[in-house]
Order: sequence, then structure tokens, then C-alpha cells
Amino acid sequence: MRDVCIVGVGMSKWGEVWRRSFRQLFVDAASVAIKDSGVDHLDSLYVGCMSGGLFAQQEHVGAICADYLGLAGLPAMRVESACASGGMALRAAYIEVGSGVSDIVMASGLEKMTDVDGDGATAALAGAADQEYEVFHGATFPGLYAMMAHAHMARYGTTSEMLAAVAVKNHKNGAKNPVAQYPFEITVEGVLNSVMVADPLHILDCSPITDGAAAAILTTEEIAKKLGKPYVKIVGSGVATDTIALAQRDDLTTIRAAGMAAERALRMAGKKLSDVQFAEVHDCFTIAELVVLESLGIYEPGKAGPATVAGETSLDGRFPVNPSGGLKCKGHPVGATGVAQAIEVYKQLTGQAENGRQIPGSPKVGMTHNMGGSGASSVVHIMEVA
Amino acid sequence: MRDVCIVGVGMSKWGEVWRRSFRQLFVDAASVAIKDSGVDHLDSLYVGCMSGGLFAQQEHVGAICADYLGLAGLPAMRVESACASGGMALRAAYIEVGSGVSDIVMASGLEKMTDVDGDGATAALAGAADQEYEVFHGATFPGLYAMMAHAHMARYGTTSEMLAAVAVKNHKNGAKNPVAQYPFEITVEGVLNSVMVADPLHILDCSPITDGAAAAILTTEEIAKKLGKPYVKIVGSGVATDTIALAQRDDLTTIRAAGMAAERALRMAGKKLSDVQFAEVHDCFTIAELVVLESLGIYEPGKAGPATVAGETSLDGRFPVNPSGGLKCKGHPVGATGVAQAIEVYKQLTGQAENGRQIPGSPKVGMTHNMGGSGASSVVHIMEVA
Repeated sequence: MRDVCIVGVGMSKWGEVWRRSFRQLFVDAASVAIKDSGVDHLDSLYVGCMSGGLFAQQEHVGAICADYLGLAGLPAMRVESACASGGMALRAAYIEVGSGVSDIVMASGLEKMTDVDGDGATAALAGAADQEYEVFHGATFPGLYAMMAHAHMARYGTTSEMLAAVAVKNHKNGAKNPVAQYPFEITVEGVLNSVMVADPLHILDCSPITDGAAAAILTTEEIAKKLGKPYVKIVGSGVATDTIALAQRDDLTTIRAAGMAAERALRMAGKKLSDVQFAEVHDCFTIAELVVLESLGIYEPGKAGPATVAGETSLDGRFPVNPSGGLKCKGHPVGATGVAQAIEVYKQLTGQAENGRQIPGSPKVGMTHNMGGSGASSVVHIMEVA
Repeated sequence: MRDVCIVGVGMSKWGEVWRRSFRQLFVDAASVAIKDSGVDHLDSLYVGCMSGGLFAQQEHVGAICADYLGLAGLPAMRVESACASGGMALRAAYIEVGSGVSDIVMASGLEKMTDVDGDGATAALAGAADQEYEVFHGATFPGLYAMMAHAHMARYGTTSEMLAAVAVKNHKNGAKNPVAQYPFEITVEGVLNSVMVADPLHILDCSPITDGAAAAILTTEEIAKKLGKPYVKIVGSGVATDTIALAQRDDLTTIRAAGMAAERALRMAGKKLSDVQFAEVHDCFTIAELVVLESLGIYEPGKAGPATVAGETSLDGRFPVNPSGGLKCKGHPVGATGVAQAIEVYKQLTGQAENGRQIPGSPKVGMTHNMGGSGASSVVHIMEVA
């Protein structure tokens, strides 16, 4: 494997974007990334997308994206691992550049979720769970994560206030993110008084339904240097899966695949967890951020909630988590999320985070953790200042 | 890139398989491939699948396949390029082994198409076309290929008898394939008298709707040698895209992406087209086989039809095409087709084709061509006796 760098990034404005279509969202993000990087061509394209079919009746996602970017001919492939599709696109592009097959590859992610109604979106997202043993019996994602939350509360004394603290912290960060869907601050009281979706998860414990796209340009260090733009190195990539149905796991209070993926990524990077200074993690629900931080090994079991309340994961805390605003505030166009996480780490490592969202002290090593379903897929990347 | 080999393969029985579910079909094929190769573990899994969502309401395809194979934990990713998804899975696995990231990777493909009704299947398949500019206006795949057929007939004098000769030849081969959906011979008269689907394409010019899965084990030559099983080398891989909408192409009588993908694969392999001795090509409709053979450069424009009638592409002809029976006879579970093509080339190159389906003269180099939509994606692989 050759060294692989990220040398330019782009995102569409995330939100309920009625005036842009599926393919237009992609072009919005991709053209910014191309301009930002200064590359004069691409060798190949990966698009992370969870359900082009159920959300937009459009499969063949790689080809349509290449075509509408004006690059018909370009090798293009969609990858999917539910809400971890974006992280998988990053991994596939990383391997392709690392292998020497291609020199300049775009890793992108895309989802247009608001062209179906709420029932349609719930049904499409349910495709990330076990259709035969969970969805058929009425399970939805808020319901699955609510079970994890109750188990965590019962075992560790985690409280609704601790969950709310995750949302409040992420909104505080995301209020400074120009592409965020909900760029404003919220309060613990506001979360606790918001409508209950699946006890104990209020609506402000849940990431939203979002239209959006994200794109990053991966290349060799030699080319990155020639381009003269800020770049970072991807030094490790790890993936793991778990049983897709929650009922088949030994323990609901941990996400085994997150820990395995992190271990694999760290081993590839030749680093220890303590070398990592901040992370973008998959906070599809507030409980997910806590369970993931514990499963990654960043906190001992049961300790992530109190640490969040104490401000340790805030922008100026000991270990900042989700400086972008996370899925909760920035939005969660499922296929795009993993790429957007890498974009935030890129921005933080190159000092380009907007509006005072920059983590103090110029961190040198960051991590992304992107997750599919109720944790049946996890993808972790380690990135470092070049 | 290290050398990469295929060392074991497996397929489920293809057809209208009501007694096996989406996930079971995958396990049927994958467990045969593991046993056939003799490997004691996998490092990663790719699953080609066009529309788990629209056909089976199941996304997160990589994770569910790893889980039901009994390998929760295994890195797993779905790839999609419409009907070229299987070829893309092969390419992704090839790059991952070649890069050194993994030593033993399964490339698989899967589609369960008969759990929806005919309208549902037509709608799902239409996701491979341009939803906004083709499908919305009523286009279906038989209709799109019928336009290509009429254009080819008008320009080159191609006849319905020439199209029928493709189907007859592929059924003659596929009658000897134990996993084929329709393992029997048909006649030119039978094709011409069969019901018209989209003029000039009769139903026997069309590949069927199929449930099925296919899997191949890719590894390094060192490991392949140790396993002591027959293996072949993948020596080239090429992908190309084109405009997704047929109306935006300069010419309906050629598939530009097929030629580009072949050129890229041959360049990577360091071979000329004349080195290739036989091919599995994407005959989703009879006209597709003719247009593809001409677009790949195997025949001059307008010459593939007469050559087929003359028997040149038969099992004992100058350049055998679709010894497996092709999509037409073997069936076309869209995500699995590209992997099954590689399996046939593997069997032919290692002398394992069943029931007298072996190409005479022990060919040394074969090609697969897998295509998405009306030609907006093409994937070509070159395989060689080790």
C-alpha cells in the first residue's frame, strides 16, 4: 500500500432540500471538492449511498453520478453498508489509491431522503435492520436504540440528562458549521421537554432525516504535494460487522463491531488509541454516541455519560467528539455521513474549521467512526497531519 | 498490485426459488465456494447486489450476508452498479487482495427477484435507467433495448433470425449447465413465434427474472498454491461508464463503455484482444450480445449477427461466447450475474465445465463482460491459466 492523502473536500448544504434532486446534490458536493483540491481529472469514483432505490427509485448510482458530473466514462461504483456507506466509500477509495490501480479517486456519499414521506423514510431506513426478524415484527430504529438506551441506563445508571448533554454539546458545535441542517444551540431542558419518540429517546435525542452529499479527493502524497493544497494522510482503515439483529447479541450496552473496527484501524496505522486526539463518531441517537465512545475504548463502560456532562467531549475538552455537530445537528443523509465525518477531521487537522469551530491546540491525529444499522457495521479511519 | 487468483467457486441453483430467502441464497453459494477453495477463513467479503431494497426491503446487504454465513465480525461491503454489480464485487475484491490489505476475500453476488410481482420487478429494474428522464416517461428495459435493436437493424441489416440465433446458441450451452434456470434447448422458430415483449424483442430474446447467488474466493498465488486446488489468475480489470440515458448518446448501435472497459482491462493485463480465446458477455437481451461483441472489438460493426448464425460463437466455434448459457438461459439475478460469469471462465480455464460444456482445445485466456442498465456501466475482467 502506498501512502494515501485527502487533498480537497466538498459538501452540499444539508437539510430538507426540495429544490435540488438526488443527482444535483451529488454534483453540488463533488464540484466543490474538485475545485478545492485543484485536481485536473479523476481516475475513479465511489459513491456511498444506502438506498437510492427506496428513497429515490434510482439505483445504478455510480453511473448517474459520474454522468451528471459531466464525466461519463469515469469508472464509478456505489458502495453500501446502510448508514456506514460513506465510510465504506472512503475505505474503497483508500484501497484503490493505495493499491496503485488509480492515482486520484473521489470518495463521496449521497442520500436524498425527503422525497418520500415519513412512513416511506422509516421503511427505507428499516432496510438497515433485519427485515425478517426485526422489521417484520414492527421494530424501527428509534425503537432499537431505545432498547439499547434502557439497557445502558439499567446497567450503568445513565440518565436522560446525560443523553441530552450529548445533543446539547453537538448542537453547540454544529451551530458554527455552515452546512449543518440545524445550526442552532439547544438546552438540556429543551431536549427533555421535546416529544418522546421511543422512550427514553426524545425527538431531540434523534438525528434528523436529511438531504445531502459530501465528497473528498484521495490521492498519493506525491500528487498532493504538487497540488500545493493542504492535505492529511489516512493512516489506518478498519471495518467490522456484527449480528444484524439486536436480539442475537450477547450485550446491548456495547457495540462490538465498533471496537473491532477501531482495533483494526489502529493496528494498520501503527498507533495506540491514546495517540488519537479527537473523533467524529456516529451519533445517530444520543445513546449511540455514549455506547460508541465506550465500545471504541475511549471511555470505560458507563463513563461516557458523566464525561459528556463534565464537558470532556466538548470542543475545548480533553477529547473533543463531533466538532462538526455530529449527525444530531449537522444532519444525517445516511450515505453521505461517513464522508462528512472525514471532511471534518480533514478540516480540523488542516486548521480550516469555520466560525471558531477549530479544536484548540492544533491536534495532529483524528478518528472517524461511521456505523450501519444498530451497529452491525462499523468503519473506522485514522487520519494524521502530513 | 500483487498477483490475484480465483481458487474456488460456488453457486446456488438459479431459478424461481420460492423456498429460499434472500440471505439463504447467499449462504448456499458462499458455503460451496468456501468448501471448493479449501480456505480456513476469510479476511473480507464483497456482495454485488443491485436492489436489496426494492426487491427484498433489505439493505445493509454486506452485514446480513456475513452474519448469516456465521461470520459476524468479518469486514463486509455491498457494491452496486445495477446489473454490473457482480462484476464490480469481483473488481473490488481483486483490488483489495492486490493491494495487500487482505489475503483471502470473497467476491459474491446476490439477487432475490421473485418475491415481488412483475410490476414490482419491472419498477425495481427500471432503477438502473434514468429515473427522471427515462423511467418517468414510461421507458422499461425491454423498450430501451428494443430501440437499440431497431437502430442496429436499420443500420446493419441485422434480422430477427440473427437475434434468435443468439438465444438458440446460449440455450444449447446452458442446457448442459446444472445451475441454469432454463436448462433446455430452443429453436429459431420457437423464438420467432414467442410472444412479443417490445418489438422486435420476443420473450425468448429476453433474459429472465431470477433468484440466485454466486461466490468466488480470491487470494494470492502463494496461498492458492498451498491450497492445492485448481486456480486461475485475474490479470486485468477495467471499468467504464457512459451517459445513463440512452437519448444522450451519439449512437445507439454501439456501447461505448464496453469498449473502454475492455481496453482498460487489456492494458492492465498487457494483452491484445486477439489473445482472448472466449468470453462470457452480458446478453440481457439477444441484441445486447451482438452489440457488445462489436463494441468490445471482437467483431466489426454489423458482423456479430452473421457470425452467430454461422456458428462462430458456438462452443466449438472460432470464438465461443457464453459457454455457461449466458444470462438468457442460465438466468439473470442481476447482482449475481457478474460473479457467475467469472465462475464460468474459471471452470473453462481449469477444465471443470460440466456435462460436455467444456470448450474444445483447452483455452488459456478468457474474458468476462458485465454491464449495467442500457450500457452506462461496463466491467471487463481478463483471466488466464496460472
